[in-house]
This record gives sequence, structure tokens and C-alpha cells, in this order.
Amino acid sequence: MAHEVVLSDTRMSMFGMRVRIALAEKGIEYEYKEEDLANKSPLLLKMNPVYKKIPVLIHNGKPICESLIIVQYIDEVWKDKVPLLPSDPYQRSQARFWADYVDKKIYDGGNRILLTKGEEQEAAKKDFIECLKVLEGALGDKTYFGGDKLGFVDIALIPFYSWFYAYETCGNFSIEAECPKLISWAKRCMEKESVSKSLAHPHKVNDYILQLKKKYGVE
Amino acid sequence: MAHEVVLSDTRMSMFGMRVRIALAEKGIEYEYKEEDLANKSPLLLKMNPVYKKIPVLIHNGKPICESLIIVQYIDEVWKDKVPLLPSDPYQRSQARFWADYVDKKIYDGGNRILLTKGEEQEAAKKDFIECLKVLEGALGDKTYFGGDKLGFVDIALIPFYSWFYAYETCGNFSIEAECPKLISWAKRCMEKESVSKSLAHPHKVNDYILQLKKKYGVE
Repeated sequence: MAHEVVLSDTRMSMFGMRVRIALAEKGIEYEYKEEDLANKSPLLLKMNPVYKKIPVLIHNGKPICESLIIVQYIDEVWKDKVPLLPSDPYQRSQARFWADYVDKKIYDGGNRILLTKGEEQEAAKKDFIECLKVLEGALGDKTYFGGDKLGFVDIALIPFYSWFYAYETCGNFSIEAECPKLISWAKRCMEKESVSKSLAHPHKVNDYILQLKKKYGVE
Repeated sequence: MAHEVVLSDTRMSMFGMRVRIALAEKGIEYEYKEEDLANKSPLLLKMNPVYKKIPVLIHNGKPICESLIIVQYIDEVWKDKVPLLPSDPYQRSQARFWADYVDKKIYDGGNRILLTKGEEQEAAKKDFIECLKVLEGALGDKTYFGGDKLGFVDIALIPFYSWFYAYETCGNFSIEAECPKLISWAKRCMEKESVSKSLAHPHKVNDYILQLKKKYGVE
């Protein structure tokens, strides 16, 4: 089967990064299309009419949306190469649980730090750290969330590492001081080319957020 | 393999109903444990320490949480009986997309109708109907979202049908007038015993919501 794979994405998106890591882990070649979110392309509007959001994977002309659904799709189509989800149903359910936890807690939690000040921001930082500690507990003493190999939960969470510097700068706190084991895990992930090549540089993410805040008048 | 299956749940929960439908479709026997959410059991707190929420499926002593993850787990463990997700990866991705859409839009959308008044409630009703129309579009002329057979998206959405009467009573509007095809689909689903036995009666749901509102002082 011939594969024509196109990724509609933006470099700064942690959700896009997940898909890029999965594609890199599987060794899949694809055409990358950077979206301008201020001026969305006809392709994006056509391929994701429901949410009009990146990332969208377009495989042989058919769109798949929502990053964790895309990563599962990639794992199922290219199933003979580097499995991302465990084969055991119970382990799969646990991987899905933690990836879903990242979606529910970490994105909004990080945004709260970026968009608030004072007491509200202190509460946001506290909640964010609590969630990271829960994840640190789930990691335990394993090399990766996936065990000996990078897996679904690692792919769900590691893109946020490129946003940590922005959260820390904005909130004036250190994630490493609170969650040293999680940062050690992140550094291990970064040793993998599939990850390091897919993540935006933390300083670029920070610049991007400062630009967005300026544009929308958020101080 | 012997299966010891326990479901920690509450009768009114649309998320619990999903699991009950999936178990009924697969013909799985289980022990049902009704939770008192005002006084959560040690079992629930132990089995879902992260969210402390029902439903939790406990299979041979091991917990699985989050309803859509549970339904996928059931489908993967009892894979030889009545498949709930399609076998084709693209079709699976689309089923996951729409089930996720239900999670993201319909629960919060319905709650907004229940918890607001006046202009705010009018906006909530409009948004809710828009989301249902999107789902009606995804259903198209198919018998079920799953095609000829009840599937993952049907299981994700149909429990909300038991809450429609409460939304309509509270918001003074008719969902059937706006989405007749979706209501026809719901009635078809209700012809299946797996569904009709799993859903709470709409009047009981409405009474339950009125009780909750009284308890928490929401008019």
C-alpha cells in the first residue's frame, strides 16, 4: 500500500509535536504544512470542519483529527513498526488513562499559569505541580511511562516539556525543584532524535507566547 | 480465563450507562455496586484515586476508569463477541473522533442548560442544538453511527437521550423539533434491550436533577 501522508500543523503546537514524534518513531515520511492560525488555509478548513484546528493528519486524502486519536491511528496502520501502545488490553487502558489525564489537566493547567497573576497564578502553579506529581507517581521508577521504550503516554506528555520554560518564566518557579524525577524522564526522552527533532526550542515557545500576549493585550 | 467483573456506578450517570450498554451488548455478567456520591465508598476511593469518580470497571481486581476507555477495554478483552469499534483503523479513528466530540460538547452543553437562565440559557440551548445537528450530520442516513450495528459512538451518545427530557423541561424547548433524525435514531437504539435496560427513565433523571438543584440551592 502506497502512503501519501500530509501533516497540517504549527511548529509551536504541543499537539502537533505528538504527531511528529509518532511519525518519527515509525519512520514515516510525510509532507509538513505549516498553518497560519490567524489565516487558516482552505485545506485545514476542509479537513477539520468541526474544530478547524491543527494537527490534522491526511493519509491518502483522508483526514484524522485530534492528536491522541492520530497517534493511535498511526500505531494501528503502521502496526509492525515500533509499537506505541502496549498490546495487553489492561496496559492499553492504563496508557489511554494517563494520556487522557495529560489532555485534561496539563494543557489547561499550563494556560492558567500563562494567563493569570498574583494569587490566582499562585493557585494555578500549585495545581499544575500537583498534577505533575501525580504523573511522576505514575512514572515511578520506570525509564519511560511506556516501560523500557518510549510509548503513548510519553508521546502525550513530552511536548509540554518545551513549554515548561515559558510556564516557569511567567510564573517565576522551578518545575525541576518540585518534580526532579519527571525532569530526568524528560531529559531521557530528549536523548531520542524522534523527540528532540519534533520539539520546538523552549526559548522560541516563550517568544511565541510573549508575542501572542502582546497581540491580544494580555500583560 | 475466569472473569470477575464489578461495576462501581450510579444509575443516573450517562457515563455509567455507556459501560452498562457495552457489558450488555457483550453479554458479560457482572456485579453492580451503586455508589453514594455524597459518601463515596472505600472501594471507589481505592479504585479511582485520581478522579474519585464513577464509573469504574473492576476486572479480576484491577480497575479501569473513564467511560470511553472502559468501553474500549471491554471491546478489546471480549473481542470475539459483538465488536463495538470497527476493525478498520480509519473507521476506528472516526468512531473515536465522534465519541470524543460527545464528551467534549454534549455533557458540558447539557449542564449549561440546566444551570443557567434567561439569555445565558438561550445561548446554551442554541449551542447545544448546534452540536446535536453536527452529530445528526455525522449520522447521515445510517441506521446507527456504527452503520448497521450499534457501535462505539452510539454507546457514547445514547445515554444522553435519558437526560433530554430534563434539558427540555428546564430549557422549555423541543430537541425533536430541531433534530428529528437524531430522535429517530435514539428511538431505534431504545428498541435494543442492551440500551433500554441500561438507561434511567427520563422522569427519574429529571427528579434527580431537581433534587440536586434544591440541595445546592440552584433555582
